[in-house]
Amino acid sequence: MANSIYRASILQSYSQLLFQPCLSNKHCVPKKTNLLCFASSQFNPARSEVSFCIGTHLIPHPNKVKRGGEDAFFVSNFNGGVIAVADGVSGWAEQNVDPSLFSKELMANASSLVGDFEVNYDPQMLIRKAHAATFSKGSATAIVAMLERNGTMKVASVGDCGLRVIRKGQIIFSTTPQEHYFDCPYQLSSELVGQTYLDAVVSSVELVEGDTIVMGSDGLFDNVFDGEIVSTLAAHSDVVEAAKALANLASNHSLDSRFDSPYTIEARSKGLDVPFWKKILGMKLTGGKLDDITVIVGQVITSAASPQPT
Amino acid sequence: MANSIYRASILQSYSQLLFQPCLSNKHCVPKKTNLLCFASSQFNPARSEVSFCIGTHLIPHPNKVKRGGEDAFFVSNFNGGVIAVADGVSGWAEQNVDPSLFSKELMANASSLVGDFEVNYDPQMLIRKAHAATFSKGSATAIVAMLERNGTMKVASVGDCGLRVIRKGQIIFSTTPQEHYFDCPYQLSSELVGQTYLDAVVSSVELVEGDTIVMGSDGLFDNVFDGEIVSTLAAHSDVVEAAKALANLASNHSLDSRFDSPYTIEARSKGLDVPFWKKILGMKLTGGKLDDITVIVGQVITSAASPQPT
Repeated sequence: MANSIYRASILQSYSQLLFQPCLSNKHCVPKKTNLLCFASSQFNPARSEVSFCIGTHLIPHPNKVKRGGEDAFFVSNFNGGVIAVADGVSGWAEQNVDPSLFSKELMANASSLVGDFEVNYDPQMLIRKAHAATFSKGSATAIVAMLERNGTMKVASVGDCGLRVIRKGQIIFSTTPQEHYFDCPYQLSSELVGQTYLDAVVSSVELVEGDTIVMGSDGLFDNVFDGEIVSTLAAHSDVVEAAKALANLASNHSLDSRFDSPYTIEARSKGLDVPFWKKILGMKLTGGKLDDITVIVGQVITSAASPQPT
Repeated sequence: MANSIYRASILQSYSQLLFQPCLSNKHCVPKKTNLLCFASSQFNPARSEVSFCIGTHLIPHPNKVKRGGEDAFFVSNFNGGVIAVADGVSGWAEQNVDPSLFSKELMANASSLVGDFEVNYDPQMLIRKAHAATFSKGSATAIVAMLERNGTMKVASVGDCGLRVIRKGQIIFSTTPQEHYFDCPYQLSSELVGQTYLDAVVSSVELVEGDTIVMGSDGLFDNVFDGEIVSTLAAHSDVVEAAKALANLASNHSLDSRFDSPYTIEARSKGLDVPFWKKILGMKLTGGKLDDITVIVGQVITSAASPQPT
């Protein structure tokens, strides 16, 4: 156990929220950056309800800019908000298959199925139905998060897209990537050998007003450390600016051959490193990871609900 | 995105479970080590239900062996199983307060309140009621996990006790510690300045047969890396042996002044290190962290439910 008894003032210790107003007057933003703030529902007048205020930013792999990269995502204002990212597996290009087709169709299907009766606001079921409706050849990792008005955020993830929840300047919840081996994540696929919704890790976390969530493809989390995510959010209260700053930071790191990235640290831990003769010269495998980078930043806001219809 | 398309056989990719039988014929084990396997409920005959098969092991801080250390825990077979760990804040000893009293009373109260109507199988509510019923002076970090028969494990945590879920040799779910600053975790306290159930991180994860969970005080997670937890579990299918092996590994690391532990890596990342003159000699802060070590290992087992009473 830590030695330290916490001695802060009562005011500080009971302070629950660090609310930063949502810039709800912004609607149109540049192509790759978006802001959405969702209105409250018309039910449960006795208590405030929560929803997401969301900013997004996508930077394609430098060699894939023309077709927009192989990541895809969607944001919906259904219920408290639904966000999702899919990341097409680039290896399909070797078989003359455009890796972006599968991820884009998967997200388009998921977007159209958000309100489906059978989905019933269950992210694992959304993955199941969206996958079943996807006919493009290819495969993709995918993550879906659905926020209920009461603050419960349900998450389903297959592979190495990720999500962090930040509260009072600390990460309080993280997803964990699944992979078969280094650089081969679990993936939904057009082929029978791939994973399905049954392989998803399904979790949930209770969110409160002021919480910030960061969802992204591995292009974010392979290039940016958790501590950098926290400090970047601290410097950008606007969700659009925060998403952009995180994507730019990931992009800069991905292009920096000397940056000791999460990706290369992981690679070295798996035994992948520079040749022996370079090692004895004190060198090691470093560098970011060139990739598509998708970032979604969501801030949890509350608003008193409207009176219930009579 | 990773390059690699997953090409395993269908059998492998659809394989969901790595079931290892629970050693249910063991009941009496040495004082500090325990095994509990919970029987199935008598409801929902149409489907199998899950419960925990649990092994525990506690090693007190070497200087606190006489009074059994300042960690406390409990295991209950209520519903699918309830497990909890509390870790008394040692700083209270400077005020002539036995740091073990608060954590032990907190866990005793939690244990007796597990089936309480108002708790309603909600771990955050259990923390609330157990804390309210605790009158010892002191403070403690605490974590509670409650497994429902359908596989949903709800978790509430205040501070830096932790929990991992391991599926098919990978960690798929982790809690994240909360702290005010290095070595000063969020803590439930007898004093008003401490945290309450409102400060708990509340999450849940869907478990399936064959999943293994590891819960522990920071004495485990400050001394043992996640990769070591996974490899230790792989070498011990018996939950009692696994808990003992993890506790022993943590204890060995805690006594090893040259081990580069999670604790010292965290310390260095916070700017705490050896003096400058040692640094220029190539030295750095290393060593494990002497502490009470509590480990609970739970394996998710299923059993066909008995017929529903008519």
